[in-house]
Amino acid sequence: MTPRPGRNARAAFRFALAAAFVAAPLSFASAEEEPLVESYTLDNGLEVVVIPDRRAPVVTHMLWYKVGSADEEPGKSGIAHFFEHLMFKGTSTHGPGEFSARISDVGGRENAFTSYDYTAYFQQVAPTELRTMMEFEADRMRNLVLTDDVIGPERDVIIEERNSRVENSPQALHGEEVNATLYQNHPYRIPVIGWMHEIEQLNRADAIEFYDRFYAPNNAVLVVAGDVDVAEVRAMTEETYGRIERGPDLPPRIRPTEPEQNTKRIVELSDERVGVASYSKRWVVPSYTTAEEGGAEALDILAEVLGGGMRSRIYQELIVKQGIASSAGAYYQGTSLDDTVFMVYGSPRGDATLEAVEQAIDAEIAKIVEDGITEDELEKSKTRALRSMIFARDDQSGMARIYGATLTTGGTVEDIAEWPDRLKAVTAADVQAAAARYLDQRRAVTGYLLPQEDDRS
Amino acid sequence: MTPRPGRNARAAFRFALAAAFVAAPLSFASAEEEPLVESYTLDNGLEVVVIPDRRAPVVTHMLWYKVGSADEEPGKSGIAHFFEHLMFKGTSTHGPGEFSARISDVGGRENAFTSYDYTAYFQQVAPTELRTMMEFEADRMRNLVLTDDVIGPERDVIIEERNSRVENSPQALHGEEVNATLYQNHPYRIPVIGWMHEIEQLNRADAIEFYDRFYAPNNAVLVVAGDVDVAEVRAMTEETYGRIERGPDLPPRIRPTEPEQNTKRIVELSDERVGVASYSKRWVVPSYTTAEEGGAEALDILAEVLGGGMRSRIYQELIVKQGIASSAGAYYQGTSLDDTVFMVYGSPRGDATLEAVEQAIDAEIAKIVEDGITEDELEKSKTRALRSMIFARDDQSGMARIYGATLTTGGTVEDIAEWPDRLKAVTAADVQAAAARYLDQRRAVTGYLLPQEDDRS
Repeated sequence: MTPRPGRNARAAFRFALAAAFVAAPLSFASAEEEPLVESYTLDNGLEVVVIPDRRAPVVTHMLWYKVGSADEEPGKSGIAHFFEHLMFKGTSTHGPGEFSARISDVGGRENAFTSYDYTAYFQQVAPTELRTMMEFEADRMRNLVLTDDVIGPERDVIIEERNSRVENSPQALHGEEVNATLYQNHPYRIPVIGWMHEIEQLNRADAIEFYDRFYAPNNAVLVVAGDVDVAEVRAMTEETYGRIERGPDLPPRIRPTEPEQNTKRIVELSDERVGVASYSKRWVVPSYTTAEEGGAEALDILAEVLGGGMRSRIYQELIVKQGIASSAGAYYQGTSLDDTVFMVYGSPRGDATLEAVEQAIDAEIAKIVEDGITEDELEKSKTRALRSMIFARDDQSGMARIYGATLTTGGTVEDIAEWPDRLKAVTAADVQAAAARYLDQRRAVTGYLLPQEDDRS
Repeated sequence: MTPRPGRNARAAFRFALAAAFVAAPLSFASAEEEPLVESYTLDNGLEVVVIPDRRAPVVTHMLWYKVGSADEEPGKSGIAHFFEHLMFKGTSTHGPGEFSARISDVGGRENAFTSYDYTAYFQQVAPTELRTMMEFEADRMRNLVLTDDVIGPERDVIIEERNSRVENSPQALHGEEVNATLYQNHPYRIPVIGWMHEIEQLNRADAIEFYDRFYAPNNAVLVVAGDVDVAEVRAMTEETYGRIERGPDLPPRIRPTEPEQNTKRIVELSDERVGVASYSKRWVVPSYTTAEEGGAEALDILAEVLGGGMRSRIYQELIVKQGIASSAGAYYQGTSLDDTVFMVYGSPRGDATLEAVEQAIDAEIAKIVEDGITEDELEKSKTRALRSMIFARDDQSGMARIYGATLTTGGTVEDIAEWPDRLKAVTAADVQAAAARYLDQRRAVTGYLLPQEDDRS
């Protein structure tokens, strides 16, 4: 994370990491310990969240736009991520690289990332620099210079990024087609970085249309975390972002949703560059935004108990007891505007086969469907989840990310504050019901990534 | 095909039959025998094709719109087919059912169908009724009454249609998900009838927007085949359709295209209602519209030699010689605006397994990839394909369908005339190359439809 020009070129792939980090919206709020988080909305529609954190003279300034790859027009895949790159070019006020140079000069760091549902830009600097960050960030919200001699070379950068990160990676190519199979109708089917043949066609008109449509104060959330005074931040935001005109009202973010899925699907890739076989099995499930009350919390606990770490059933059975897997686990992507993914995954160890790993994980799922989980598992998994929020509290930018990701995927500041209580309310029966309802083998999408000689056919 | 109200309710499913019929654009043209087909365009943009056929006092009047389900907005699946239903409702000039009643009164027949790329309406009547057909058809191109009390009940009809034809049919449900897996980016992924949850949301505003956008003379092709005089037809079209104002110019029909596909995919459904197991294996391949010169013709010959009928390799080997299949074959959907499907399929007979059928068909593909086809097979398959155009000539509405489907999927009248010569130019090497290039097991999508007890897992 040392500042250097072009570091944002990796951003599209960081979203996975960022998403994992905020898989469950965490909060350092509790009944005893009222958070000092303050939120307000400027007249032009910009939502602002301020999270005081006075442990060190550092401030995290993150601007989140409520636009990600799932908001792209059909045929224009990759424009959201492409635009993230373009935001590092010059504006009518500041030359190319000037913003990054300033951050570097003051010993700060910066980054940006694009996901299915949001695009975010952040800087971490000394509090004295906060106002300057706001000025630069507000400037590039509306004043970017989008000429062909900016667009063309940056498109080449993105094509090269896709070449190196996806086209040359059987893991990435396989993952793309697993997702394209999992989602039959929803745009989460399409990779964040975009399909190569569509990236190649992105042009200046696409960029300008995207900018004018989505980059406006009324489509953004500002998160400021750090050693700051709330009143001062408020004044600063009004004097910088507050001067930008509201953009046109955007329609609700309603994307095509999934039909009922009835089939079991398999996506297989054999490639000589694959060393060890691996698989993942995925289902479309509700997210924190789309679930009925408590539904997402139950899925979070299910992922934790089933395969969330070293105490989980999958880890204990496959890695510790049977010793057949080198890696195995479960994962739930709870923070998502629309229905999302629950997955299990594994890779064999030594002479064990991939089939043995898959069967053992299926058996763990079946046990939970049939017999549920114990009260002890329930309580310990809750404790682990709640404790992870304590760790998150130690990471200023991590906290800022939780707020930004939640607020750009349909959640509220209150949702974050109430999450611990909602998590605590989950029962063992809720978890068993979630497993029975969603982890249906007849509707799963399974991806096999195999060494060349292991072709299953 | 006896005329009765509501017969168009089955239309979405007829497209498959219609498409099969026009899998290869056929023509009764040859160097010796110049066709008398005449085509012209009215000032308002309506393309007209007249095919004189004086064997019987009958005329086929077909109006084709260049809009199908693949032109729908994301989230609005089913609107093209829904609209086909609405076209049988009343206009500001004629009450509901008046058009159908007139056809019935004069002993005619009518139908309509919706496909991925087009929507068509046809009547077959005595030539004396042609002008009246034009008047009615031109009237409903622009004067439909689209009120909520028309829309609501018809949406219920379509929901019931989907219930009975898809939701209650494991074959149909499975076929939908096979296609949703085959196409990762292109709208051919979405069923023509639409996803149930999206059909349920279609409303008056959607219908009006669709009508105003796509139902205009400059987005339609009229095909008249039968015992008519070309000059008279021309005068009639000018006096009926010619009075309709041109609609707004439509952008080119550019849909999102497929990315490179790298994975082998399997889509499996086990259902207690399935009596005998079956499978299909599919690939995305070029269509007559997207292929390089001669490419689609080679795929047509490949489908014919591999599995096009009783003389094909698959039929002879699996059904006649080995006796392991009750049905098996190959099929190429050549008439398509965008890249399309090539498939093989089969079902076991007696004690044979589905695996044996699949392996035997794979072996036939491998033989062609490795050893090509014989000159004798090449010539005989060409003769069969060319002879099928002779049969088509015997069917007036069949001829009209060939012209309509070709002209609404990017082809021309000349393409139809030149097709026999282009087919004759295909070499055995072209066919072998097409098999090697496209029928790659590593990129195939295989669908298994199984009785409940046969679950492969």
